[in-house]
Amino acid sequence: MGKKQQDARNLSMVMDFYELTMSHGYFREGKVGFKDELVVFDVFYRSNPDGGGYSIFAGLEQIVEYIENLHFDEEDIAYLRGQNMFSEEFLQYLAHFQFQGDIYALAEGTVMYPEEPIMTVIAPVIDAQLIETAILLEINHQSLIATKTRRICNAAQGRLVSDFGARRAHNMDAAVYGARAAYIGGADSTATVLAGQMFGIPVSGTMAHSFVMYFPDEFTAFSKYAAMYPDAAVLLVDTYDVLRSGVPNAIRVAKEVLEPMGKRLKGIRLDSGDLAYLSKKARKMLDNAGLNDCMIVASNSLDEFTIQSLISQGACIDSFGVGERLITSKSEPVFGAVYKISAVMRNAVFEPRIKISENVEKITNPGFKKLYRVYNEQGKAVADLIACQDELIGNSPEVTAVDPKKPWKKRSFKNCTFKQLLEPVFIRGEFVGKRPPAKKIREYVISQLRDEIWEEEQRFSNPHEHYLDMTPKYYRMKTELLEAAKEA
Amino acid sequence: MGKKQQDARNLSMVMDFYELTMSHGYFREGKVGFKDELVVFDVFYRSNPDGGGYSIFAGLEQIVEYIENLHFDEEDIAYLRGQNMFSEEFLQYLAHFQFQGDIYALAEGTVMYPEEPIMTVIAPVIDAQLIETAILLEINHQSLIATKTRRICNAAQGRLVSDFGARRAHNMDAAVYGARAAYIGGADSTATVLAGQMFGIPVSGTMAHSFVMYFPDEFTAFSKYAAMYPDAAVLLVDTYDVLRSGVPNAIRVAKEVLEPMGKRLKGIRLDSGDLAYLSKKARKMLDNAGLNDCMIVASNSLDEFTIQSLISQGACIDSFGVGERLITSKSEPVFGAVYKISAVMRNAVFEPRIKISENVEKITNPGFKKLYRVYNEQGKAVADLIACQDELIGNSPEVTAVDPKKPWKKRSFKNCTFKQLLEPVFIRGEFVGKRPPAKKIREYVISQLRDEIWEEEQRFSNPHEHYLDMTPKYYRMKTELLEAAKEA
Repeated sequence: MGKKQQDARNLSMVMDFYELTMSHGYFREGKVGFKDELVVFDVFYRSNPDGGGYSIFAGLEQIVEYIENLHFDEEDIAYLRGQNMFSEEFLQYLAHFQFQGDIYALAEGTVMYPEEPIMTVIAPVIDAQLIETAILLEINHQSLIATKTRRICNAAQGRLVSDFGARRAHNMDAAVYGARAAYIGGADSTATVLAGQMFGIPVSGTMAHSFVMYFPDEFTAFSKYAAMYPDAAVLLVDTYDVLRSGVPNAIRVAKEVLEPMGKRLKGIRLDSGDLAYLSKKARKMLDNAGLNDCMIVASNSLDEFTIQSLISQGACIDSFGVGERLITSKSEPVFGAVYKISAVMRNAVFEPRIKISENVEKITNPGFKKLYRVYNEQGKAVADLIACQDELIGNSPEVTAVDPKKPWKKRSFKNCTFKQLLEPVFIRGEFVGKRPPAKKIREYVISQLRDEIWEEEQRFSNPHEHYLDMTPKYYRMKTELLEAAKEA
Repeated sequence: MGKKQQDARNLSMVMDFYELTMSHGYFREGKVGFKDELVVFDVFYRSNPDGGGYSIFAGLEQIVEYIENLHFDEEDIAYLRGQNMFSEEFLQYLAHFQFQGDIYALAEGTVMYPEEPIMTVIAPVIDAQLIETAILLEINHQSLIATKTRRICNAAQGRLVSDFGARRAHNMDAAVYGARAAYIGGADSTATVLAGQMFGIPVSGTMAHSFVMYFPDEFTAFSKYAAMYPDAAVLLVDTYDVLRSGVPNAIRVAKEVLEPMGKRLKGIRLDSGDLAYLSKKARKMLDNAGLNDCMIVASNSLDEFTIQSLISQGACIDSFGVGERLITSKSEPVFGAVYKISAVMRNAVFEPRIKISENVEKITNPGFKKLYRVYNEQGKAVADLIACQDELIGNSPEVTAVDPKKPWKKRSFKNCTFKQLLEPVFIRGEFVGKRPPAKKIREYVISQLRDEIWEEEQRFSNPHEHYLDMTPKYYRMKTELLEAAKEA
């Protein structure tokens, strides 16, 4: 991973304008820096994309980069001055601003569930506000693509999946960080060269129709390509006619060009037509020619649903090139993580805050809290558990909890282990977290899904809903706060 | 627009790996630079998003920046060498690569239609290949968002529309260039500060729930904000209870804080609940308090469909803050522009190329061609017309054309004017085009839709399909090529 890993741009100004207008308000009130003015913000999301049973937390590394770089240069200050809304004192304050808060977050790649805190910011209120947009944007983008790709890889049942999405991505970053997220989610490779270069992702690519059309005929084009990459040639066979021209020419190249070199044809690619039908026919033709080891790669608007359907039809496909529906998460292109204030320090104590809202599902979980994952004796994650910050959940033989959706039904965890999920990332503005390479994050995703997460939560439709419980103390606090708010 | 206009990154490596593997193939064949080796590639797309009648061409400025910067630095060459697929001669060639071709494109902001060339690249084959991914990515992203935003603005019928999407964008560029595209498409402002700074887009913002929740009560929060921005305060009224707390407190602030300053309350914002019902109730309360000039801003998962529905229900909303469904074009997040070879020069003549494909709709329009827009005497665009490159369509009293979907039905244009739509952008690698500021592009979009484009094409559902005709000569060429390909 080269020096390009660090983004040379100053992206500090990628924030919503209201972060600045509100911060100006806090500044006028003297709510600056420490004293007893800290606030707590939680990041959480409300539902898994595509009706899935879980999501994958991604984007943390880029949040760290944003916060470490966060500053307002002269040009930024001049621009803000030109808005005629900010006092000179506030602009000077911004000119020297550096993030000073604490941040706790899930490790990147952690399997996560709706309504639980996935990141907590404890900071002076201006510090907490100025990082909101970047935090949400990175989590929403990368978690979306990682989660979508995981679904696609599950559908592919061990067959290779490659990200071919750059050309349909929502601009450059979406291609590059989308490729990173796809790799974390389980893709085996990407076609986007810069993503390979920045994150150590294997790059892959075949050929375009233009290459075939450039040469006087398909056989010539295939021959040239195969001679150049005798170990790696995947020939695109659908430019003219898959079964009458493309596959026969590929076989001829295997025989006439590669065999004399002592090489085998690596693969063919189908990019249009009925992929189930064509792949079965092509497989038979290849096998009859003794090319049993020639892979069939398929592409063309694939996603988890088309892949599942192709496999159930017996399609002979070894590798899927997945483009637009992966890189945009087409069936559900929005991941709805939000950033909500949950406590404000008054007289050195965090007072919980709750947002009521006209929409019940927008009511927040108040207070400064902890999140535990609860594992049974087999190491399976049986629930997540929200506790007050001052509660310590030990590995006691029995721990009681409340299911907030069925509070009359107490739950008790016997012989379980409890793991705190939110890890320190920044303490007083200093980065104290980890920056594992994308490959390690990818392996962490795979190991959780294999060892810890119930298969029932990994189904495409009607997955088991992971329990998000609360300690009795936390539940009582939330209920009292709700009741007090309703009386006010 | 500051120096940030130019992106400091080297994005050259945002390309699909196959652009490089194919280029290596052309290099080995000696297909380098001029001689008689030029090729023609066309960019076109196959259908308008959301079943619309047209799309808006956007992203050209960023394509120009990409191509002007396109180069492979030492780190890039080292990375490619590490792939063990490329000859040292080719790597040296890349190290000195500069784009040398010609590019013609629609002016940014042009209303465009499916199947017609919206950009044409005439270049040595490697040059043409290496820019494919970036061209498609920029056009696909920005045209998507511009087109979506135009639909949203049409639905808003002259009410204000602001882009609030950054936090749900597919990473930083999607927020920033998405805001640019949204502005081109008709948004009045953006909340994304960097986009305002880079492209001169007006920035706007209200306040978050956290601001209201930070203070001991809603009235205090509103008072502080209004006192700070007496001319611009838009108060978020749904943190606790819109009609019982939010609106009454906003009115009290208007009376007790702003009136003594000689100021009027600018607006309130609704962000949850039944926006039709709440806006009507809030309007009545504001009017009864003499605040007839207080705007009502609404947000919460809006798009053209919800806005149309709100207006038809008589919602009293003056301004829409549109976030996730604009910045991701949620209902259709993929714009499918493609880049297809249409001619290859042999012996100094461009031989047309056609791609047949298993899917009929993937058959391409072959050859080096021109695109005209045909205007009637009232200045309305009655059709677009594809001609061979060597045809000159004058403003003759009658021009015949073929509708390729109904070739038996000749069409004739009487007293029409013909405007060539593809304008030179690069000639022999030199930029010769225009770089109008986003504001001018936005005005161009508005003027076309007002003066040139039939209202029937601007409907949401079942719009009139714009005619894409061909000159008889062009149609004959395409037909002959198709027949020859089928016989081969």
